Amino acid sequence: MSTGKLNEQAKGVYIIAATPFTDEGAVDLQSVDTLTDFYLGCGVHGFTLLGMMGEAHKLTADESLSVVNRVIGRAQGRQVIVGVSHAGLENVRRLSHEAMIAGASGVMVAPAPGLKGDEGIYNYYAQVFQALGPDIPVVYQDYPQTTGVYLPVNVFERLVDDFKQLVMLKHEDAPGLAKLTKVREGEKKAGRRRVSILVGNGGLYYPQEMRRGADGAMTGFAWPEMLVQVYELFAKGKAEEAEDLFDIYLPLVRHEVQPAIGLALRKEVLFRRGAIKSPKQRAPGSSLTATDKTELDGMIARLERRLADMGRLAKAAE
Amino acid sequence: MSTGKLNEQAKGVYIIAATPFTDEGAVDLQSVDTLTDFYLGCGVHGFTLLGMMGEAHKLTADESLSVVNRVIGRAQGRQVIVGVSHAGLENVRRLSHEAMIAGASGVMVAPAPGLKGDEGIYNYYAQVFQALGPDIPVVYQDYPQTTGVYLPVNVFERLVDDFKQLVMLKHEDAPGLAKLTKVREGEKKAGRRRVSILVGNGGLYYPQEMRRGADGAMTGFAWPEMLVQVYELFAKGKAEEAEDLFDIYLPLVRHEVQPAIGLALRKEVLFRRGAIKSPKQRAPGSSLTATDKTELDGMIARLERRLADMGRLAKAAE
Amino acid sequence: MSTGKLNEQAKGVYIIAATPFTDEGAVDLQSVDTLTDFYLGCGVHGFTLLGMMGEAHKLTADESLSVVNRVIGRAQGRQVIVGVSHAGLENVRRLSHEAMIAGASGVMVAPAPGLKGDEGIYNYYAQVFQALGPDIPVVYQDYPQTTGVYLPVNVFERLVDDFKQLVMLKHEDAPGLAKLTKVREGEKKAGRRRVSILVGNGGLYYPQEMRRGADGAMTGFAWPEMLVQVYELFAKGKAEEAEDLFDIYLPLVRHEVQPAIGLALRKEVLFRRGAIKSPKQRAPGSSLTATDKTELDGMIARLERRLADMGRLAKAAE
Amino acid sequence: MSTGKLNEQAKGVYIIAATPFTDEGAVDLQSVDTLTDFYLGCGVHGFTLLGMMGEAHKLTADESLSVVNRVIGRAQGRQVIVGVSHAGLENVRRLSHEAMIAGASGVMVAPAPGLKGDEGIYNYYAQVFQALGPDIPVVYQDYPQTTGVYLPVNVFERLVDDFKQLVMLKHEDAPGLAKLTKVREGEKKAGRRRVSILVGNGGLYYPQEMRRGADGAMTGFAWPEMLVQVYELFAKGKAEEAEDLFDIYLPLVRHEVQPAIGLALRKEVLFRRGAIKSPKQRAPGSSLTATDKTELDGMIARLERRLADMGRLAKAAE
Repeated sequence: MSTGKLNEQAKGVYIIAATPFTDEGAVDLQSVDTLTDFYLGCGVHGFTLLGMMGEAHKLTADESLSVVNRVIGRAQGRQVIVGVSHAGLENVRRLSHEAMIAGASGVMVAPAPGLKGDEGIYNYYAQVFQALGPDIPVVYQDYPQTTGVYLPVNVFERLVDDFKQLVMLKHEDAPGLAKLTKVREGEKKAGRRRVSILVGNGGLYYPQEMRRGADGAMTGFAWPEMLVQVYELFAKGKAEEAEDLFDIYLPLVRHEVQPAIGLALRKEVLFRRGAIKSPKQRAPGSSLTATDKTELDGMIARLERRLADMGRLAKAAE
Repeated sequence: MSTGKLNEQAKGVYIIAATPFTDEGAVDLQSVDTLTDFYLGCGVHGFTLLGMMGEAHKLTADESLSVVNRVIGRAQGRQVIVGVSHAGLENVRRLSHEAMIAGASGVMVAPAPGLKGDEGIYNYYAQVFQALGPDIPVVYQDYPQTTGVYLPVNVFERLVDDFKQLVMLKHEDAPGLAKLTKVREGEKKAGRRRVSILVGNGGLYYPQEMRRGADGAMTGFAWPEMLVQVYELFAKGKAEEAEDLFDIYLPLVRHEVQPAIGLALRKEVLFRRGAIKSPKQRAPGSSLTATDKTELDGMIARLERRLADMGRLAKAAE
Repeated sequence: MSTGKLNEQAKGVYIIAATPFTDEGAVDLQSVDTLTDFYLGCGVHGFTLLGMMGEAHKLTADESLSVVNRVIGRAQGRQVIVGVSHAGLENVRRLSHEAMIAGASGVMVAPAPGLKGDEGIYNYYAQVFQALGPDIPVVYQDYPQTTGVYLPVNVFERLVDDFKQLVMLKHEDAPGLAKLTKVREGEKKAGRRRVSILVGNGGLYYPQEMRRGADGAMTGFAWPEMLVQVYELFAKGKAEEAEDLFDIYLPLVRHEVQPAIGLALRKEVLFRRGAIKSPKQRAPGSSLTATDKTELDGMIARLERRLADMGRLAKAAE
Repeated sequence: MSTGKLNEQAKGVYIIAATPFTDEGAVDLQSVDTLTDFYLGCGVHGFTLLGMMGEAHKLTADESLSVVNRVIGRAQGRQVIVGVSHAGLENVRRLSHEAMIAGASGVMVAPAPGLKGDEGIYNYYAQVFQALGPDIPVVYQDYPQTTGVYLPVNVFERLVDDFKQLVMLKHEDAPGLAKLTKVREGEKKAGRRRVSILVGNGGLYYPQEMRRGADGAMTGFAWPEMLVQVYELFAKGKAEEAEDLFDIYLPLVRHEVQPAIGLALRKEVLFRRGAIKSPKQRAPGSSLTATDKTELDGMIARLERRLADMGRLAKAAE
């Protein structure tokens, strides 16, 4: 199934897919199917596999590839991006080629920890681009909170100017709003390409980022339909309605962005919503206490109440 | 003016006070007055001075003391806690005594960066408590995101058991909800004191923390009246109303918790609300772009609209 | 070839083996052979494969296993320890079993980055030991400079008391001399096992560590014969002669422990000594400038001059 | 006493002075005198006060100034550099002016932790230089191991080109040899000033650094006479003799560079040599065990034996 390669026009919601495991810790390919269907049912525009929140670092190379193949085979033509960050460039190259052969539309690369200085970042990506060749579209994952590598805007611009295969910025620096604006301002320079920017950080600043020129989201919030609806309302020019909707989910967005415990919460919700058969993470992972689960019950009840209120208001307004 | 010493029964909102500067960067004592009055007008129950968000590290010793004296003199009997964290124990001791002589009710101490192992933390605080003596009440500031020092619950419990002057936990570990619950569960053990827990992190998880047994908040959100009202609703057993109110402010809470830029946003709001004469931070500090300010305009307009809606609904419900 | 399992009596020099690559970046198995022979010629007592300085993180799983098999097949019965640290416990388990099936004598595990508090460390290793079962001997690699996880002595002692399969400490905390002494003092307690302690950190504190009770070295200095001779002199009770010999090499020891560039220096020397066909590291790696190489020439000339002086002195003393 | 301002021609050994305390933890000004005399007796060319190893962060502002005044008053016209790094620029400015008024020849500034990107570093120093004005000579302390801020050579060059008051690099990046060479190579460009480079890191790479173009050392090794003699031998073109002498001290150099415990070792030696009345550090500090002291006895005995051997050899050669 040809979905085309990722390019600068990419937009919408590329969901950071969770990786489902059985209670015993094996990759659960049937849950990969149901989860893929669930995401499709939420209207996502694409998938991003093997990201940091996909527990990719706990998979074997074979398992990684089996997940990639399984999702691509079931994604109904949606584009699939595969995370290929690795300590060795040769592994980045190999994983990228395997992903592209499997039908991926592009790959995502975070900077190697320990890069030093602006030149260090530029040179690392120059090496990556040379290793991958010009035909594999690349997403720059800008997540310094984990990598420890800060990306100055002018370094990103040099990379965009010099390497056509760099087509997207996954924006999740913090603070990052001014940075996003600076990238968009810089693109007004004659001759510079406008790249796609999808935002991460669990969506915590999604409406502000859309107002500043983001093209959508690349994150894994457990209610992907919100991410999609907010995107679509923005696409229709209804920024205020988009933000109204977002705000209803915000209590759960900020709950899910908690470090360490966030993935346990996300998988618990996906489990409750029937998308996966077990909320289990592969060891070592986090898990929820009874109190955590009761708290989540209450927060979901509040969400549903507010969604119902909104529905009534909308009906009344008709 | 005797306000009594801080003890385990402390509750409510101890506002993390900003430190106002003139546009030229001098400490602005007149703005200290107006800001103190502003906080009092919001109904705060106490003050915490010279915290991390108070730019304490940029003040001279003399300036610090002048701010402490000024606030205590104007605080209408509210308790004042003073941050005294310092690389040298002798400085911790000296600042603490100066603060107590000035009329403070207690001091707040964060662990020195670089402490190693459970014993390292215990021993550091044992040294601090010995240096301060039994008569100065102490708040443990648990903020590992900045200090790099993780506080295990059992270490905190040993400190509580061994040192009567430890009366409060400023809770801002992340993730921290399960930790808060664990502290409260541990206090059910016969013979252990129940200490006061006030929460930080800009209030991002305030309702969840109150439901789990927090006694209030110690943070500096630029709309302190929300912190106070939420506390009071919880005190009356109206948890759902409290959280409804909180959720209206949540978009701005999460906006203000952004690293680096957060203090610029907080001071801008305090400035717009007339509490201080300049939003200036002492160098090196962060500042807002024109886009940041326009964005803030929009977010405040949304807040006011929703507060007005809530008012109408309340009136209609009468 | 049965070499027996690693146990608490292990002593001598377990060389941290470099991984040789061709100039094109492929694993060079013929150089694995010559390097293994070189190490054997230097008199090493054992091997440690896939350590941090073995560029293990840049190998594929298949490559790792091929290196392990190649060395074990050629090691003339010397024990081989395999580094199996990995972000996922399932991978630790799998790599360990593969290594043991291939004929390894034990595995080495560093703590996962991000472990928190004494309990966090204990629980992680308890999980590891449970996953591996009682039959795989384990080395605790204590290298907080890279892992960020400080190991308190009492936590190590609890692990030794509770898990028989923990037979060795690879000691490379810094500062670490007092810690080594504390472990040895603690072992005098009735009922506690005395474990093997081999030291790392490039051997920078080797004589002091031997005097404090270390059983040898586990490091990869490019003149392994020095590590072996120092060990043997200590074994014969000739501590001063051992340290005299060590001091002759110390300028190069401290040159090779430089971060980042150290591995390039080590491989350059192994290359010059004919142990490997290329000093190449897999990308991204460090490399030497012309000045670096000239400097190394000079330092090696100084080493050889001093070794010759020592030889003359020894002859004169006969 | 006018000693002139620091400039690009500075060379020799600027000793990082320890700060002596009484056993009770008070600044011991009489020991400041004897320590200053001791350093002068060793032949140092200058002093650097209030560095990281001078426990400056544990002093009050008044204490700092009293130490500065005391040393300057007794330094027999040697230049004195004062460390003025501080979280607030206003404090950097104030401390610098106080130091210069007291008679210092220049100040040393490390980058504020958390600076991001090449521009972030440039802009920070641009702010510092503007705050200090053109008349205060500045040393850039390049110690990323502690500050976390990596200085690219091209950023340093831009600062040298743009700010005349930047006259010295305190070089202690690691690895740093190639960097030092790169700075010296860059200075061959027409129009660029050659600045003074003094090396730190406890002197661990001192001979290599001198061969690559350093002008001397700025560190606090407890046998400063070695630092001075090595400098002077290099100045006379006797590089091999210089390195021979250095190598005799190298076991103790590398012993003293141990993190955390290093300062305790340094002060113990200064105490034993009669330079200070107590080896006490201000709390929280490190201290030596009985085993540490016995070990030090042995190492010093070895040093003295080798110095005596060298003396005999020199005599025999006459």
